[in-house]
Amino acid sequence: MIVVRTVADLRAALRERRGGSIALVPTMGALHEGHATLLRAARRTDDTVVMTIFVNPAQFNEKSDLAAYPRTEEADLALADSEGVDVVFAPDVSEVYPEGFATTVSVSGPIAETLEGAERGRAHFDGVATVVTKLLLAALPDHAYFGAKDAQQVAVIRRFVADLGIPVDLVICPTSRDADGLARSSRNTRLSPDERARALAIPHALQEVTDAVAAGTADTDALRSRALKTLGAAGIRPEYVAFVDPITFAPAAVVDEPVLVAIAARVGSTRLIDNTVLGGA
Amino acid sequence: MIVVRTVADLRAALRERRGGSIALVPTMGALHEGHATLLRAARRTDDTVVMTIFVNPAQFNEKSDLAAYPRTEEADLALADSEGVDVVFAPDVSEVYPEGFATTVSVSGPIAETLEGAERGRAHFDGVATVVTKLLLAALPDHAYFGAKDAQQVAVIRRFVADLGIPVDLVICPTSRDADGLARSSRNTRLSPDERARALAIPHALQEVTDAVAAGTADTDALRSRALKTLGAAGIRPEYVAFVDPITFAPAAVVDEPVLVAIAARVGSTRLIDNTVLGGA
Repeated sequence: MIVVRTVADLRAALRERRGGSIALVPTMGALHEGHATLLRAARRTDDTVVMTIFVNPAQFNEKSDLAAYPRTEEADLALADSEGVDVVFAPDVSEVYPEGFATTVSVSGPIAETLEGAERGRAHFDGVATVVTKLLLAALPDHAYFGAKDAQQVAVIRRFVADLGIPVDLVICPTSRDADGLARSSRNTRLSPDERARALAIPHALQEVTDAVAAGTADTDALRSRALKTLGAAGIRPEYVAFVDPITFAPAAVVDEPVLVAIAARVGSTRLIDNTVLGGA
Repeated sequence: MIVVRTVADLRAALRERRGGSIALVPTMGALHEGHATLLRAARRTDDTVVMTIFVNPAQFNEKSDLAAYPRTEEADLALADSEGVDVVFAPDVSEVYPEGFATTVSVSGPIAETLEGAERGRAHFDGVATVVTKLLLAALPDHAYFGAKDAQQVAVIRRFVADLGIPVDLVICPTSRDADGLARSSRNTRLSPDERARALAIPHALQEVTDAVAAGTADTDALRSRALKTLGAAGIRPEYVAFVDPITFAPAAVVDEPVLVAIAARVGSTRLIDNTVLGGA
């Protein structure tokens, strides 16, 4: 496994590997089993696996969140190596955003402006779209792997990749969960034992909604009420419990075709998100 | 020479040509000798020459200008063929902007917000940056050719190509001029004989400013006054006579290093632009 810090070195490392397929797995480091799932999917499919580590300042709306974001490069590199990663691209901020940088890739409409876009501000998804565009163009991979946990991020990335015609196939891997059901996240390490126990109400609420749909409830107001009750019982007042079209993020009143239910909530001071698709094929 | 209408067909046509170098020459059609100059430069350098024809609605701030923009595809294809173009990519608007399209590539700062950006509105350079990104990613050329006449467009393209890391070398060709000095433009066909005679005051003013710098005048206010006098004598009140850094478009008070002097003016109802670099290496 080699570690490169510049786009030029990344491209040089990939030049002789273009005969086979190339996978890109973008991360912000602080790797956990969820990332390992993405790396394994890439390793099974592609000849060369490239993992990126970059904590992107442009997508953090809170300086405190950026400052608190865990940075564990040594452990990350060990995990990447053990999962068979070929190339790690871990640039400095100045490599990604040199002086004079002035370009933004921006997606408009509900995909980028509602839910996470509304809670975290417009700059969040602009930051995601800009940096993911840069990573995709730096590596020009055949496949890029993302986790379904960040459902709205996935929708934004699908949108600008299609709109700009970036030549890559996106591979969306199911949300990885701990044995108790909590979606894996680098931010979970910030939860106290009590907060972690209460946070389980989030996957529980998603499961209850899934079961209710299977039992015949289609009205999303009724489903939302049920989720809010479960969350409330754990002392959680969510930022949103949203039912939307998984591609356009237009609100869904009824589960008559696949509907994404997405929850965002603070547990203590830690912001968590989770989601599942209802009525999916 | 083949003509393709979709990105998929363009990529298929280029797949077997990637062993050699590929040139992209983006145009809005209505080809004239200025475009031919770009095509010849590409033909001399690259193994495959791709020309695009696309009148990009997103970059027109005036619907009347878009409607009046000359469309001469048959003649354009004949010229391209005679200049040895290999592939013409001439997509419909729906191929470039399909339903649901929601992505913008945007450059901020003086490069995009002053002069043409101020006169034509922010959407103009957003439209340019978005469509040129799409054309570059569709063809993934080794070289892309643009004319120096659109100096600010060139600066915007340089900026986002560098910022996003689009893997292409830009080749900027000198402004092509008719024998009388008028910069070639598809819009020149709209000028009446009298307007065309008056329009020559624009290149004359640029030449006077160049001569004045050679004779020792460095103060850009003095140079601007001289240009305004020449333009005024021809009945032309320009939108701007600007002296700026050619890369950042920051205003320049003195010509002590290369300074771009750019003029925009309406002659009759036709908007013309022209420029030259002063004190260049």
